[in-house]
Amino acid sequence: MPGNSFGQLFRITTAGESHGPGNVVIIDGVPPGIELSVDDMTGDLERRRPGQSKITTQRSEADRPEILSGVFEGETTGTSLAILIASRDQRPRDYSEIRDKYRPGHADFTFDAKYGRRDYRGGGRSSARETNVRVAAAAVAKKMLRQLHGVEVVGYVKQVGDLVADVPEPAAVTLDDVEANIVRCPDAATAERMIELIERLRGERDSIGGVAEIVATGVPAGWGEPVFGKLKADFGRALFSLPAVLGVEYGAGFGVATLKGSENNDPFQPPDEGQPRIHTASNRHGGMLGGISSGMPIVLRCAVKPTSSLPQPQPTVKRSGEATTIATKGRHDPCLLPRFVPMGEAMVALVLADHCLRQRAQMGE
Amino acid sequence: MPGNSFGQLFRITTAGESHGPGNVVIIDGVPPGIELSVDDMTGDLERRRPGQSKITTQRSEADRPEILSGVFEGETTGTSLAILIASRDQRPRDYSEIRDKYRPGHADFTFDAKYGRRDYRGGGRSSARETNVRVAAAAVAKKMLRQLHGVEVVGYVKQVGDLVADVPEPAAVTLDDVEANIVRCPDAATAERMIELIERLRGERDSIGGVAEIVATGVPAGWGEPVFGKLKADFGRALFSLPAVLGVEYGAGFGVATLKGSENNDPFQPPDEGQPRIHTASNRHGGMLGGISSGMPIVLRCAVKPTSSLPQPQPTVKRSGEATTIATKGRHDPCLLPRFVPMGEAMVALVLADHCLRQRAQMGE
Amino acid sequence: MPGNSFGQLFRITTAGESHGPGNVVIIDGVPPGIELSVDDMTGDLERRRPGQSKITTQRSEADRPEILSGVFEGETTGTSLAILIASRDQRPRDYSEIRDKYRPGHADFTFDAKYGRRDYRGGGRSSARETNVRVAAAAVAKKMLRQLHGVEVVGYVKQVGDLVADVPEPAAVTLDDVEANIVRCPDAATAERMIELIERLRGERDSIGGVAEIVATGVPAGWGEPVFGKLKADFGRALFSLPAVLGVEYGAGFGVATLKGSENNDPFQPPDEGQPRIHTASNRHGGMLGGISSGMPIVLRCAVKPTSSLPQPQPTVKRSGEATTIATKGRHDPCLLPRFVPMGEAMVALVLADHCLRQRAQMGE
Amino acid sequence: MPGNSFGQLFRITTAGESHGPGNVVIIDGVPPGIELSVDDMTGDLERRRPGQSKITTQRSEADRPEILSGVFEGETTGTSLAILIASRDQRPRDYSEIRDKYRPGHADFTFDAKYGRRDYRGGGRSSARETNVRVAAAAVAKKMLRQLHGVEVVGYVKQVGDLVADVPEPAAVTLDDVEANIVRCPDAATAERMIELIERLRGERDSIGGVAEIVATGVPAGWGEPVFGKLKADFGRALFSLPAVLGVEYGAGFGVATLKGSENNDPFQPPDEGQPRIHTASNRHGGMLGGISSGMPIVLRCAVKPTSSLPQPQPTVKRSGEATTIATKGRHDPCLLPRFVPMGEAMVALVLADHCLRQRAQMGE
Repeated sequence: MPGNSFGQLFRITTAGESHGPGNVVIIDGVPPGIELSVDDMTGDLERRRPGQSKITTQRSEADRPEILSGVFEGETTGTSLAILIASRDQRPRDYSEIRDKYRPGHADFTFDAKYGRRDYRGGGRSSARETNVRVAAAAVAKKMLRQLHGVEVVGYVKQVGDLVADVPEPAAVTLDDVEANIVRCPDAATAERMIELIERLRGERDSIGGVAEIVATGVPAGWGEPVFGKLKADFGRALFSLPAVLGVEYGAGFGVATLKGSENNDPFQPPDEGQPRIHTASNRHGGMLGGISSGMPIVLRCAVKPTSSLPQPQPTVKRSGEATTIATKGRHDPCLLPRFVPMGEAMVALVLADHCLRQRAQMGE
Repeated sequence: MPGNSFGQLFRITTAGESHGPGNVVIIDGVPPGIELSVDDMTGDLERRRPGQSKITTQRSEADRPEILSGVFEGETTGTSLAILIASRDQRPRDYSEIRDKYRPGHADFTFDAKYGRRDYRGGGRSSARETNVRVAAAAVAKKMLRQLHGVEVVGYVKQVGDLVADVPEPAAVTLDDVEANIVRCPDAATAERMIELIERLRGERDSIGGVAEIVATGVPAGWGEPVFGKLKADFGRALFSLPAVLGVEYGAGFGVATLKGSENNDPFQPPDEGQPRIHTASNRHGGMLGGISSGMPIVLRCAVKPTSSLPQPQPTVKRSGEATTIATKGRHDPCLLPRFVPMGEAMVALVLADHCLRQRAQMGE
Repeated sequence: MPGNSFGQLFRITTAGESHGPGNVVIIDGVPPGIELSVDDMTGDLERRRPGQSKITTQRSEADRPEILSGVFEGETTGTSLAILIASRDQRPRDYSEIRDKYRPGHADFTFDAKYGRRDYRGGGRSSARETNVRVAAAAVAKKMLRQLHGVEVVGYVKQVGDLVADVPEPAAVTLDDVEANIVRCPDAATAERMIELIERLRGERDSIGGVAEIVATGVPAGWGEPVFGKLKADFGRALFSLPAVLGVEYGAGFGVATLKGSENNDPFQPPDEGQPRIHTASNRHGGMLGGISSGMPIVLRCAVKPTSSLPQPQPTVKRSGEATTIATKGRHDPCLLPRFVPMGEAMVALVLADHCLRQRAQMGE
Repeated sequence: MPGNSFGQLFRITTAGESHGPGNVVIIDGVPPGIELSVDDMTGDLERRRPGQSKITTQRSEADRPEILSGVFEGETTGTSLAILIASRDQRPRDYSEIRDKYRPGHADFTFDAKYGRRDYRGGGRSSARETNVRVAAAAVAKKMLRQLHGVEVVGYVKQVGDLVADVPEPAAVTLDDVEANIVRCPDAATAERMIELIERLRGERDSIGGVAEIVATGVPAGWGEPVFGKLKADFGRALFSLPAVLGVEYGAGFGVATLKGSENNDPFQPPDEGQPRIHTASNRHGGMLGGISSGMPIVLRCAVKPTSSLPQPQPTVKRSGEATTIATKGRHDPCLLPRFVPMGEAMVALVLADHCLRQRAQMGE
């Protein structure tokens, strides 16, 4: 599958760069008859965009999507659906400083090694700007999942530096809980400390990493396929495809390393009043067994590195190999996590939309 | 991409179950002219098979591969390469005990929820037996990678329970180091304690989880593609497609959550005597930046859960929903990690073989 | 899509050569619960195999399929379904005569140009022997199509040399009509003359081309997708993937070149007693409009070249470039058409099975 | 492969409709370093557009492409390349006449049967307008093929109604020969009669079919893959994906039906002065043997039906099933062939660009 596409049936293909005229996504496989307008996308795009709060970058990129095709008289037609997000701000800048230097932690060096060239104006295709159309496409996926199965996908910030949120029931967190504060952490007390930490690091011209948790509820038991089509495998690909992600886990995650089988197995339980279907007493399996959904909430976590761009001098090399230093100009996020949340949700929703259609193809339901 | 295939150009498609007549893999994209015989596969198949040591399951499954096509006069032809591993032992057994019960931690329930039926004789398609043909196919990938680029893929056990191996230089670990003990941990002192722990848990009719580390050396800078074709995304899908994996990370992994940008960024360094190309001083980026290889060693880790099958009674339910208990009969691994190592290596090699050809397609080298 | 796979959802992947130990096919996407045994495949395999009648080659290749996976207790499981057809006859032969010569009309030269080598024992991967597993896989497709939608796929010989069969109503031809004579032509009088012609050409150590017609009935209106997913496009790929096919057409086919729009357009008709849905009065559109099925019978034709292998000396060159002659030893079909019929049916059935699932994925029906 | 994508490595994904804000194509796999601007596309877009001459439709659609991404400082970057062709003319029209009627020969009925809705303003996604971005993308393919291998793709009109052009040497026809007259037929005398015929039919408010021939020269021996990856199979899919194509053939095509093997086989010839490589004396195989290029010119033909839209009343039905008549308003092509030529060339170039990269992936050249 070429590198600009994701999904087998509900499939997105994207293009666009940090400093080009716009970003575009083509979505295949959308069923007809879903009411859709740009308003369905603006909420998540607003959550993703730079400049939304004091703890994100102060760059302002209003993302105004335009639907180019696939919607007629307010409903999806079933044919190729394209969304364009034109860039508003294309002022020429002076790139002489970064043109020949490799920014540490960025893809400048690896793009050059691969292609023998790079768009030095801000990362080109490696810039996180490309995620805006993922988020727009995922808005369509979210709407379809909600309508067909009542599936909801909600993400939040679980950890920033050493501060770990207390979220006793991941499946109970709502979008409102998440949006109650600018760091997008549903544990209000920890959220406040996270904001303080991030502001302190901004003051120190530094950045900090963290962990996001993404939860999908309402997924029926039976989605996913054996072997390479496991839901967890597609979530793995999906979340690792996001910039800055160095780790992905679900359920008990890396915690399983220290567990015994007798501690880790989630016992099955008969249907009861609260849950009319067979379910498990605990959810260390994160909603997937054998890579197929169990009907329990799907709980995923991503480790997100601290922003690589820093407004302090860092040692690096030039294209020629000569040692030098570089300090990022312009405004950057001191912590990627708050803006990562809608991106993580987007990728989880896209995987689920794809498997929703794959399940229907094989099972007719 | 259908669930039984993996890879875009170097692509495998598999079939087979725990108790069927055999497992088969078809490999697309193998370049012609690679010397190949079943002997190239038997080493890794032996490392994967049950019954190989006192700390793995005592079931014996001699895996004797047969090349059905794609090799002529001892060399690959460039056409569809098929490998069959027939099952030796297909004695009828009594499955009445497990026929209607869902084993905790297994895919019995989710397969039933998906397909409305399941092969109750041992997991069917969800059984780890399917990984034998992945390992056989990866032997072809490893050979191609070694011949074309000198790439080597070596895995080992990094952690079992609370015991964490000390492996100061992952890229220096050799296959011989790994195979020096039956737990496949290159830190001899920790290996001994791991073996003791595993034997103790077997005695307690329990099991234990752990972490495997897979390292690829010799990968040139420039493999991988932006956005969804990131190397890390394909490693994510690859490793999560293996049974029992609940977490995947690379480089600093989940450790990035507590790092500052100024601590996490790996500074680029000019070429020097030891490394004739631009490189980084440290390797917290695990050999990938922007999802594209940097030329530094690729270092991945997988969290592997404790074996779900336990020879002690566990609470569960029947198909009907009625509560019951189940205890696994037959022999099982008290720790999956030693046998996981060749599986993890296999998936890493398959991803690299695919991107080796993808790079050649676009860049001609 | 790699060259050994066909189909997006109902997808086959094949391997195997003319003289290897066997041919194998893996089928993805088969819905669970379809009764299946090797008996479902033997009918069409028998129609395809060499040596079945006096006008086909006298080589004998009994094709006995073995189901390796994907069927449990007599029904499909929904997981990867593999079928192996082992080769019965692998006697060593003397290939010194053809080892260094390129047979005219065969792929000997082009394989060598591509791969720098070839399996000179009979065409290797280019041999029509690979079609046996396509026919086996299509037996599963045919069964699924019949059960889910009452779709039937029937092919027959329409033309041999200058002899053109009179088939006034393609959609009314049954398998019994086709199998009533050894040339598989439902027009009995022309069939007799075709057989005479073929036998005469065998006597002359020559061969003759022809045209096969494949008809699918019962396909509901609405299968296929716009643009590149057009049904006609997938039929085109499917039928051209068969050996010896130099032309494919549907409906009026190449005849449209001399038609006016006022003559060619099939007028739509209101539902009436015979046909309870909107339909067309004529079927020059061959059952597809805009590449999507109209509910009318799908009618396709393939031009099949005369057998290239001839038992008379033909001028050619050696690998070295030196001029020489070659005469085929062994027995060959003087006309490929009778054995082509089940292959053509197979590819049409595989396309329809795929679009059946694709339609269900997007439309839920 | 979803219906809006074409190609495995050099892969295009398209969106857009007859009356939407624009059409867009995303191209994957373009090697970096190819000089590219919109000027490379305008030539073929001009050949495709309506209103270019007196024998094509008089509608005017100036197609001005915009490169959205994948080009930096005048050269391709190697990353996702997107081209947008905005629609200039989106005046509201009165569609009440065709809103509920199915145009004969169009996809109105089949789209409705599939999706339960359709864009009635002019065919929506089924409109030939979508081919403009195919032509734009193919301009990139043509440029790459020319630079890497000297491959040229030239098409022309071979037949209109009963008038068949005399083109003794297809591989010698140049773009200038083709563009020498408005019907795009390199046989000047026949071209004149074709133009007369088309003008007469326009006068009769009717239309006429024909045949286009597409020739690719310079393709090295060895492109294409066995079985489903045959070049001829991909050409089949490519050309049948174009609107109005009811037949595709190559080399001797349907003519093989009446040939004997001794007449049809093209004898191989030793290298000689004119051709320094092994070649064939004749080219009835149309440049492909076993689906792999032989180094001889690739010669393909498409049967194109007469325009379905006619300015005379034709019987049809309404959505409700009620009988009615419909006459097309607005201007339409009385013969599709002249404008089909660049579309046919485009699809042939896209197939070759894909196999160029596939060959490089496997063979490294």
